[in-house]
Amino acid sequence: MAAAHEPEVIRDKAAMRAWARRRRAEGKAVALVPTMGFLHDGHLSLVSAAAASAGGQPVAVVVSIYVNPSQFAPTEDLATYPSDLAGDIRKLAATAAVAAVFCPPDLYARPDAGAESASCLEEAGGAYGHETWIRVEHLEKGMCGSSRPVFFRGVATVVAKLFNIVEPDVAVFGKKDYQQWRVICRMVRDLDFAIEIIGSEIVREADGLAMSSRNVHLSHEEREKALSISRSLVKARTAALNGNTHSQQIKYQMVQTLTEAGGQVDYVEIVEQESLVPLERIDRPAVICVAAWFGKVRLIDNVEIQAPS
Amino acid sequence: MAAAHEPEVIRDKAAMRAWARRRRAEGKAVALVPTMGFLHDGHLSLVSAAAASAGGQPVAVVVSIYVNPSQFAPTEDLATYPSDLAGDIRKLAATAAVAAVFCPPDLYARPDAGAESASCLEEAGGAYGHETWIRVEHLEKGMCGSSRPVFFRGVATVVAKLFNIVEPDVAVFGKKDYQQWRVICRMVRDLDFAIEIIGSEIVREADGLAMSSRNVHLSHEEREKALSISRSLVKARTAALNGNTHSQQIKYQMVQTLTEAGGQVDYVEIVEQESLVPLERIDRPAVICVAAWFGKVRLIDNVEIQAPS
Repeated sequence: MAAAHEPEVIRDKAAMRAWARRRRAEGKAVALVPTMGFLHDGHLSLVSAAAASAGGQPVAVVVSIYVNPSQFAPTEDLATYPSDLAGDIRKLAATAAVAAVFCPPDLYARPDAGAESASCLEEAGGAYGHETWIRVEHLEKGMCGSSRPVFFRGVATVVAKLFNIVEPDVAVFGKKDYQQWRVICRMVRDLDFAIEIIGSEIVREADGLAMSSRNVHLSHEEREKALSISRSLVKARTAALNGNTHSQQIKYQMVQTLTEAGGQVDYVEIVEQESLVPLERIDRPAVICVAAWFGKVRLIDNVEIQAPS
Repeated sequence: MAAAHEPEVIRDKAAMRAWARRRRAEGKAVALVPTMGFLHDGHLSLVSAAAASAGGQPVAVVVSIYVNPSQFAPTEDLATYPSDLAGDIRKLAATAAVAAVFCPPDLYARPDAGAESASCLEEAGGAYGHETWIRVEHLEKGMCGSSRPVFFRGVATVVAKLFNIVEPDVAVFGKKDYQQWRVICRMVRDLDFAIEIIGSEIVREADGLAMSSRNVHLSHEEREKALSISRSLVKARTAALNGNTHSQQIKYQMVQTLTEAGGQVDYVEIVEQESLVPLERIDRPAVICVAAWFGKVRLIDNVEIQAPS
């Protein structure tokens, strides 16, 4: 018999839904934390936020662990995405805050087709395969959407699937994936999901690097260089708060900092917080977003700036 | 105080969801019949199917009435689509089988934006408007998808919204809109909605014309000519069952029948029932689908054929 705080591990969709419905029938709110596993303290902060949601009502926290193939393009790092399910379950058990871990083997399998599944390309499925995709047509453009063309389509679709399987009252997403968080908020609003979305603050290593499962792939040297990301964001934020609100200038300085450190910049953007529309001046609530490569690792980070008074 | 079988009329999304959740808490299944109103006996047969669903469990039937702007292209007949809400509610009350009628004024309104809403074109919404769309990428192509490019995107999206608002256990769709029914089934499978979809048989007038809200726009003469649709389908079905399984021949004869009657054919297709892939020969479960114009009215109809033995 498992200890009281040992999470139940569920692999089957129908079992997951039945489990969540039983918790709701018991008067609990269900809070979902969708992850791709290889958990770090950033993920655990999402678990804490989930456990503290629903304002006093008892909460059953569900963490899903699923590396979603449909959000990776064929050129991307699906094959090398790190995983450690046993370690993940240990970490979640140690929080004593997680009631269930949902780790399905394949979310795109046809119920009538055995092991067959959808790859990142819907064409692979043919006339009977997975073919339904959700697009958030403005917010998916720009920033990560420019360099990762199928990313947000894959994210929105798998999150909708998880929402329909777990039927949570609350779902928690990290603001490190800022554009993803906004895409999910917009999808929930537009499709009338009865789910409260919580955006949880970025958790950083002591030296400032935003926590990410991909950090494990950084060499010691690359990791040092990658500190230029958070350093450039802190500098930019300080400049903006001190009255330098010209986006172009700030972006230029950031690109310089990142490039001098040996990074290859994918994008630096300063955008409005809700619409993600680029801002020429930081004259309203803004977020500065960065994506840059260090070696073979693409890292993202961001900082929010409320409008300077 | 309303009579026991008088349906409750609900206009607000949150009130609708709360109402449906109360019914489920009472142990009832919730069955949804999505319509665009101007109800006829075809719709009432969907209500009967909904009332008979859930195998003995008490059922609360919800009929939604909403003319969904996002499934009409700017050139189409949104402005002249017939409506009669008071008459619809009377007809539903007379069935004594409907517990609630959901007739929202606008399903795309931003909660924070007063009367502003999305038109059939997402661009109208701008950076804060409705921008999330569901596409069923294979099934939406061909047949009605060819001549009505935004139709299935609009249908899938509004049905997902209705599903998330009403949270039904069962939803009933008419097989007259055969491609629509298949699109919805596929969306439900691919996005893991916990909803059983029932496809309900076509209801015809005594003379064979498939019931449709748009029939009201036919002149007496056009209506006579439009009987060529069901006539051509009956002939085609008979031919196929008698061993003429060559799709091209059958389609040719149907086009001839429709054209001679004065119809303008949009399409005649013979496709596999689940995938809607065109068939050269009727050697497996097939459906013959027709769309044709009579005057300014576009009508659709179809007949299923199980494979001849």
